[in-house]
Amino acid sequence: MSDKKIHFTKMHGAGNDYIYVNTLLYDVNDPNSASVRWSDRHKGIGGDGLVLICRPTTDAADYRMRIFNADGSEAMMCGNASRCIGKYLYERGLTDKTEIKLETLSGIKTLMLHLDNEGKTVESVTVDMLEPLTENHRQYADLSGGILLAEGRRFEGTFVCMGNPHFVTFLNDIDTIDIARYGAVMERDSNFPERCNIEFAQILSDGAIRTRVWERGSGITMACGTGACATAVAAALTGRASRRSEIRMDGGTLQIEWRTTDNHVYMTGPAEIVFDGEIGE
Amino acid sequence: MSDKKIHFTKMHGAGNDYIYVNTLLYDVNDPNSASVRWSDRHKGIGGDGLVLICRPTTDAADYRMRIFNADGSEAMMCGNASRCIGKYLYERGLTDKTEIKLETLSGIKTLMLHLDNEGKTVESVTVDMLEPLTENHRQYADLSGGILLAEGRRFEGTFVCMGNPHFVTFLNDIDTIDIARYGAVMERDSNFPERCNIEFAQILSDGAIRTRVWERGSGITMACGTGACATAVAAALTGRASRRSEIRMDGGTLQIEWRTTDNHVYMTGPAEIVFDGEIGE
Repeated sequence: MSDKKIHFTKMHGAGNDYIYVNTLLYDVNDPNSASVRWSDRHKGIGGDGLVLICRPTTDAADYRMRIFNADGSEAMMCGNASRCIGKYLYERGLTDKTEIKLETLSGIKTLMLHLDNEGKTVESVTVDMLEPLTENHRQYADLSGGILLAEGRRFEGTFVCMGNPHFVTFLNDIDTIDIARYGAVMERDSNFPERCNIEFAQILSDGAIRTRVWERGSGITMACGTGACATAVAAALTGRASRRSEIRMDGGTLQIEWRTTDNHVYMTGPAEIVFDGEIGE
Repeated sequence: MSDKKIHFTKMHGAGNDYIYVNTLLYDVNDPNSASVRWSDRHKGIGGDGLVLICRPTTDAADYRMRIFNADGSEAMMCGNASRCIGKYLYERGLTDKTEIKLETLSGIKTLMLHLDNEGKTVESVTVDMLEPLTENHRQYADLSGGILLAEGRRFEGTFVCMGNPHFVTFLNDIDTIDIARYGAVMERDSNFPERCNIEFAQILSDGAIRTRVWERGSGITMACGTGACATAVAAALTGRASRRSEIRMDGGTLQIEWRTTDNHVYMTGPAEIVFDGEIGE
């Protein structure tokens, strides 16, 4: 470890927490290794991973995001992290735009910032999550009838791809079901050649949707942006909800709109700056 | 949340990580509540709790430590945290002493700092953990023969009190035994009116002792200072080791010496500064 200090900001979106570094000011030489060391929740900063805010490689974007998982691998994109980047860019004075084009490994994403009355604070951010793929897709799934069997229980559900694969099943006992037991088996069902994220959902009496998430490779997580989108799409497709719904996950609540005009899914939710720090590289 | 920012330092000793605030510079109005909010590993700073470095209430001590668990309750003392305080006080220029008297809720503890050759860095810290209580003590345990039965298995062990109660059992299958399964039952054995910490230990081929810790109320933890002391005392009492031993836990290694001169247990181990930060109160 050299004496060089790197400034970072810890942020979370619906409980999905990352370490953010503005690489226009502080360079991170080896982000894969830094993400492993810094994400350690006892001996590092602690987080779901490391996000670098970078200059774009194309004029079509304002900024670029690179996102590294806690195991050091580079991820394509994270909806919860991109909302945090929107808040950071505006509140820290890196932009005065309220519509930002963000370059990611899965294309350029559009962020729409919602400001407070004084125009100083970003209260929430909408991310255009593009079009869902709602038919079976050989790469990800080949489910006939939308039925999965796991541990002796039958789960009827809907497959939705939001860039990554999701199987959404609506239940009536969401708060008592052992999602770790079923999720671990369903994720690896032979119908999913690249495994699958599983959403356990229930329509609440006020019309909102409670969703518990099992992420492939991670297990139970507090929230999942693409999982919330997939849940809303599945609810609309099966007539359980309109094309606008509120998804309540353990880490927070997201508003999802599946627009008829462009068939895109728009995710709106919170982004929080928790603290600023500096650490040796 | 006000605009006032509080500076903090994140440190760990053998993986036991706390948020440290120097209250001579930054006051924390409600440390119980701050510990709950800040210890949250997704929406806060993340840590096992909050430690306040304070002026002592008596001339017999140099500084005072207050320690709050992640649930907001105030703890008596933590050996791993007191080593970190030693490092902080010296390296941040609050003292030039290498023997520090630290006031805690369980009395004044003596810290001995071990410096590098240049006298700038604290490489390790020894804490005088005082005398062990090695006989059965009605308040904590009334074990005849040192035998516990749990889940159909028989555990022979030694009861040692280091201010808090420990039951140390030596095994030959420490890396494969399901300590969560047995620990949860043994902690609540009817012989322990205030429950008990359980150490599963094994003498390694090089003479060091591998210890896995089940803490009452917390479950499996990466390291436990009093648990390491209790393990070393139990090993010496049963003729498995001399009065100096090296205890290897998941979070790190501690050197324990049970001195014949004063019957005190001295714990030596690492302390690491991870990063500095500031957060709104």
